[in-house]
Amino acid sequence: MSKATELRALLSGDRMVRTVGARDGLSAKLVQEAGFDAVWASSFETSATHGLPDASLLTMTQFLDVAEAMNLVVDLPIVADCDTGFGGPLNVAYAVQRYEKRGIAAMSIEDKMFPKMNSFAATAQHLVSTEEFVQKIQAGKQAQESGDLLLIARTEALIAGFDLDEALRRAHAYADAGADAILVHSKSRNPDQVLGFGARWDRDVPLVAVPTTYPVVSEKDLYEVGYRLVIYANHGMRAAIKGMRATLADLARSDSAAGLEDSLASMAEVFALQNMPAAFQELA
Amino acid sequence: MSKATELRALLSGDRMVRTVGARDGLSAKLVQEAGFDAVWASSFETSATHGLPDASLLTMTQFLDVAEAMNLVVDLPIVADCDTGFGGPLNVAYAVQRYEKRGIAAMSIEDKMFPKMNSFAATAQHLVSTEEFVQKIQAGKQAQESGDLLLIARTEALIAGFDLDEALRRAHAYADAGADAILVHSKSRNPDQVLGFGARWDRDVPLVAVPTTYPVVSEKDLYEVGYRLVIYANHGMRAAIKGMRATLADLARSDSAAGLEDSLASMAEVFALQNMPAAFQELA
Amino acid sequence: MSKATELRALLSGDRMVRTVGARDGLSAKLVQEAGFDAVWASSFETSATHGLPDASLLTMTQFLDVAEAMNLVVDLPIVADCDTGFGGPLNVAYAVQRYEKRGIAAMSIEDKMFPKMNSFAATAQHLVSTEEFVQKIQAGKQAQESGDLLLIARTEALIAGFDLDEALRRAHAYADAGADAILVHSKSRNPDQVLGFGARWDRDVPLVAVPTTYPVVSEKDLYEVGYRLVIYANHGMRAAIKGMRATLADLARSDSAAGLEDSLASMAEVFALQNMPAAFQELA
Amino acid sequence: MSKATELRALLSGDRMVRTVGARDGLSAKLVQEAGFDAVWASSFETSATHGLPDASLLTMTQFLDVAEAMNLVVDLPIVADCDTGFGGPLNVAYAVQRYEKRGIAAMSIEDKMFPKMNSFAATAQHLVSTEEFVQKIQAGKQAQESGDLLLIARTEALIAGFDLDEALRRAHAYADAGADAILVHSKSRNPDQVLGFGARWDRDVPLVAVPTTYPVVSEKDLYEVGYRLVIYANHGMRAAIKGMRATLADLARSDSAAGLEDSLASMAEVFALQNMPAAFQELA
Repeated sequence: MSKATELRALLSGDRMVRTVGARDGLSAKLVQEAGFDAVWASSFETSATHGLPDASLLTMTQFLDVAEAMNLVVDLPIVADCDTGFGGPLNVAYAVQRYEKRGIAAMSIEDKMFPKMNSFAATAQHLVSTEEFVQKIQAGKQAQESGDLLLIARTEALIAGFDLDEALRRAHAYADAGADAILVHSKSRNPDQVLGFGARWDRDVPLVAVPTTYPVVSEKDLYEVGYRLVIYANHGMRAAIKGMRATLADLARSDSAAGLEDSLASMAEVFALQNMPAAFQELA
Repeated sequence: MSKATELRALLSGDRMVRTVGARDGLSAKLVQEAGFDAVWASSFETSATHGLPDASLLTMTQFLDVAEAMNLVVDLPIVADCDTGFGGPLNVAYAVQRYEKRGIAAMSIEDKMFPKMNSFAATAQHLVSTEEFVQKIQAGKQAQESGDLLLIARTEALIAGFDLDEALRRAHAYADAGADAILVHSKSRNPDQVLGFGARWDRDVPLVAVPTTYPVVSEKDLYEVGYRLVIYANHGMRAAIKGMRATLADLARSDSAAGLEDSLASMAEVFALQNMPAAFQELA
Repeated sequence: MSKATELRALLSGDRMVRTVGARDGLSAKLVQEAGFDAVWASSFETSATHGLPDASLLTMTQFLDVAEAMNLVVDLPIVADCDTGFGGPLNVAYAVQRYEKRGIAAMSIEDKMFPKMNSFAATAQHLVSTEEFVQKIQAGKQAQESGDLLLIARTEALIAGFDLDEALRRAHAYADAGADAILVHSKSRNPDQVLGFGARWDRDVPLVAVPTTYPVVSEKDLYEVGYRLVIYANHGMRAAIKGMRATLADLARSDSAAGLEDSLASMAEVFALQNMPAAFQELA
Repeated sequence: MSKATELRALLSGDRMVRTVGARDGLSAKLVQEAGFDAVWASSFETSATHGLPDASLLTMTQFLDVAEAMNLVVDLPIVADCDTGFGGPLNVAYAVQRYEKRGIAAMSIEDKMFPKMNSFAATAQHLVSTEEFVQKIQAGKQAQESGDLLLIARTEALIAGFDLDEALRRAHAYADAGADAILVHSKSRNPDQVLGFGARWDRDVPLVAVPTTYPVVSEKDLYEVGYRLVIYANHGMRAAIKGMRATLADLARSDSAAGLEDSLASMAEVFALQNMPAAFQELA
C-alpha cells in the first residue's frame, strides 16, 4: 500500500490526522518518533533553514529534494507544501509528475500569485483568479499517474482580506475541480474564521487547518466542524531555534563546552537518529 | 579581503579562533549571531540532518551545496569538513577547485580510508598510508588558484589506536606537504592526548582541536600548547534535537499548540533570521 | 581580471563579439575550441537537453548549476540566459547574487511574463509592464556586489507583436534603469526588424542580436547599426541532434557498430575534451 | 508492470536486448526514437558532458539525477552505469535504495577500486578482491525493496590484465552472490575475449557485452554464446561531437549562420523532442 493510500485511509478514519512541519530528514524523524501521523514538508521551514525569506526564492527542485530526503528516512506519508505550484498550470502538472514519482503522498498548492510572500508577513497579499487556480488544480489532477496522490487546494482568501463568503466560493470551485482536500488558511488570532468556515462547509471533501496564529483551538473543536487534518506547521523548527540559541549563548560565554551536556542530545542519541548500523552506535 | 584571508589573519592573532558546527544556513546564522569566529560545515551534522549515518553516503556535491548555502547568508568564513577528500588525489584536487570557486575559506581532509565511518563509532578505523595522504594534500594545494584557501590536514591516528609518536610523524609529513593547519582528533575522555600532542608540536603550523569527548578542556589550556582553532563540532545540532524532542513530545500529548509558546522562537524571530525584507517582518 | 571584465572589454572593442549556445560543459568546450568569444548558456538548449519544453519548468538552481558547469571547464565568459529572471524583483536580485558568486560574467533577463513559453512557439506572448521590468533590472543591478557582472535586458516586444516604437520605448526605459546591454529579439524571417531597431538606437548601450529565424543577416550589417554581441543560440545542439539521429538510425539497422567509425569522434578525442590527465589519454 | 520487470522479460526473450548510451533526457529520447530497447545511462558520457575525466569525480547524486531525468522522458527502462558503486557495501546499499525509489530498472557496478579511471585509459587498473565485491553485490541485493531491480555485476578482470580463468572465477562468485547479469568488459581490438568467455559460461545468468573496442562483433555471434544484452556505450555522444564540431567550425569561418540549415535539426524538430504542447510546436 502506497503512503498516499495510507494517508487517504487516515483521512477517512474517525479521528484527526496530526501533522507537524519539518525541514529535513532529521526533523521528519523526530516528528515520526513523537507519534504524529504525517510530516508537513514546510516551505517556510525550508526557506528559513536556508536563511532565506519564504518568498518563492528556493526552487521546485530544491523543495522536491527536501521532501524526498524526508520520505527516504521515515515511514510516515509526506505532505509537501508546494506554495503556489511554482508557476502556472504547466508548472503544477510537471511538479505533480515529479513529486508523485518520488513517492510523495500529498501536495498542497495555494491560490496566491507567484512569487508569493509568507502569509503572515506584514504586506498585502494577491490572489490569482478562481478560474486560474481551478486550471492549476485540473492540470495537477490530470498529470498524476495513479489516483493515489492527494492534491490539497489551499485558499488564502482570508489571508488576503476577503470574507468567509469568498473563501467558501473559492473552496467550492476548488473541490469541484477535483481537489482532494481544502486547506483554509487564516492569520486571525482566534479560531473563529476557521471554525466558521467549517460550520458552513457542505462538501464531502476534508478540511485542513494550520493553527499557527490561533494555537488555542483544540483538535476536538476543529474535528467537529469538518477538519480532518491539522498541521502544526513550524513548531519543531521554532523549538530547535530556541534550544540552539540558548546553548550557543552559553558556549559563547564559556571557554569550554563543559557544563553543556544537560542541554544536549547525546552522541549516541544522534547515532540512533542517523540509523547508524546498530553495532556502531555505542560510543567508542 | 576574501574570507580565507580573514581566517588566516584570525589564526595569526593572539587568541583562540572559535568555531561551532552547523548544518545549513539557519544554524550558521545562529553561530554567527552568538559571536563565534567561523562556521564548521560539519559532515556529521549534515549526515544527521539527512537522517543518515556519517559514513560517506552523502556526496561531495551535497556537502558543497550545504557549505555554499551557509556562505551565502553569513559573513563568517566557512571551514568545510570534507571527510577523506571524497576519494583519491584527483578527487581532492577537484573538490578544492569547486569549494574555492564558491568562496569557501577552508577545507579539512582526514587520513582515514574512503568510505569513512564516524570517528566515535564503535568500530575499527583504518588509515591510508602517510604517503597516500601526502599526495592528497599536495594535489589539493596545487589545485587551488589563489594562495588564500586553507587546507587543514586532520590526522585520525589517535582515533585509529596509534600513539602520539605516530600522530606526530604523520602531522609532520602533512605540514611538510603544505597543510595550512593540523587537526589532531581524539576520542579520549580527557584532553591528555591533544595537550600532549601540542606540547610536542614544533612547527609553525597552527593546531586545531575538536573537544567532543573531552569537553572539560579549556580554550586557554589548548591555546597554551599551540592550538589556534577550536571546533565545537556538533553542539548546536544536539541542542536543537533536545529542544525539538521536548516540544514535540509536549505537542503529542496535547490536543492543541496552546501552552507551547514559551518553548518556541516567535514567528518574528524566524522572519529576522530569514532576512525577510524589514518592512514585512512584523506579523500581519 | 574577472571574466565579466573581459567581456566588458570585448564589448568595447572594434568587432562583433561572437557567442554560441551551449547546454553543458562539453558543448561549451566545443564552442571555445571553435574560436568563439563567449558561451550562451541557453535555456532553450538546457530545457531540450532534459527533453522538456522551454517553458519555465526547469528551475533557477538547475540553470545555475549548468552555467557553473560550463564556467568550470572553459576560459570563456558565460552569458547566462535567465529567461524572465525566475519571478519578480526579489527573484532577480537573488539570482544575480547566486550567479555572480559562481563567477558567471553576464545574465540576460527578458520582459515576458513568468512562466514563459519559448519565443518561437505558436502561441500568444504576454509581456510584463515596462514598470515591472524596470523594477527587475534595478533590483538586479543593486544586488550585484561588484560592478562587473553584466545584466542584459531582453525585450520581447517584437515577439509579442508590438512594433518598433514600443520596442524602442521599452529598450530606452531598460537602458535608463541600468541595463548593460539590450537584446532585441525577433522571430521575423528577415533581419529588417533588428536592423531597423539598430538604425534608430541612440544610446551608448550595446545591442545584442539572436539571428535564429533570420540567419541570412551578416555580422557586418548588424555591427554597422550598433550590435556588438551576436548569439547563435542553438546551432550546436541542432547539429548534435542531426548527427546523433543519423548515427543511431544506422546502428539500429545494423547488428554491429562496425562501419560507424567515420561518423564518430574517436575515444581519444573524447578523452581530450574531458581533460583526462595527459598520460592517460592514449587508448590502452 | 514496472520497467525493471519489462527489462527482465526482454532478457528472457529470444533475441538480443539492444542498449545505447545516453547522457541526458534528450539523448535518451533519441535512443528510444531509433528503436532500441533500453538506455544505458553512461558514466563516461555523463563525465564527458561535464568536460570532466571519467574518474569518479562526478557524484552518486549527480548520476542519479541524470538517470532520473532520462527516466522521466522515455518509456524505455534505464540501465544505470554506477561505476564501482560509489564506495563500499554501505554505499552500494544506499545507492540501490535511491535508484530503485526513482524507478531505475537496472544498475551496473564494477569490480575496480574506487576511485576508478576509465577502462580504456592508458593506465594500470586495480580490482578489489572477489570477497569485497561479493559483499557489495550482496549488500545491494539485500537493499532493494522489490525483487525487480536488476543488479548487473561487471568484471574488469580482462581490463586489468587478468586472463579468462580469473574473469570466469570472479563472474561465478558474482553470480552466486545474486547478480542478475554479468557484464564482462574487454578492451581487446577483437571479440575473442568476450566470445571465449561466453563459450565457457555455464550459468543461467545472462551476459552483457560492451563492444567499444571490438565493434566488428555481430550481435548474432554474441547471442550464440550467451550474451543477452549489448551496450553501444558512447556512440550517440561521439556522433554528436562530430556533428557539433563540423557545424561550429563552419560557423566560425562565416559571418552569418546562413547555409548551415542542412546540417541542423530544425527548430520544429527540437520542439517535438521537448514534448512541447502540440499546439505550440509550429514555428510562430
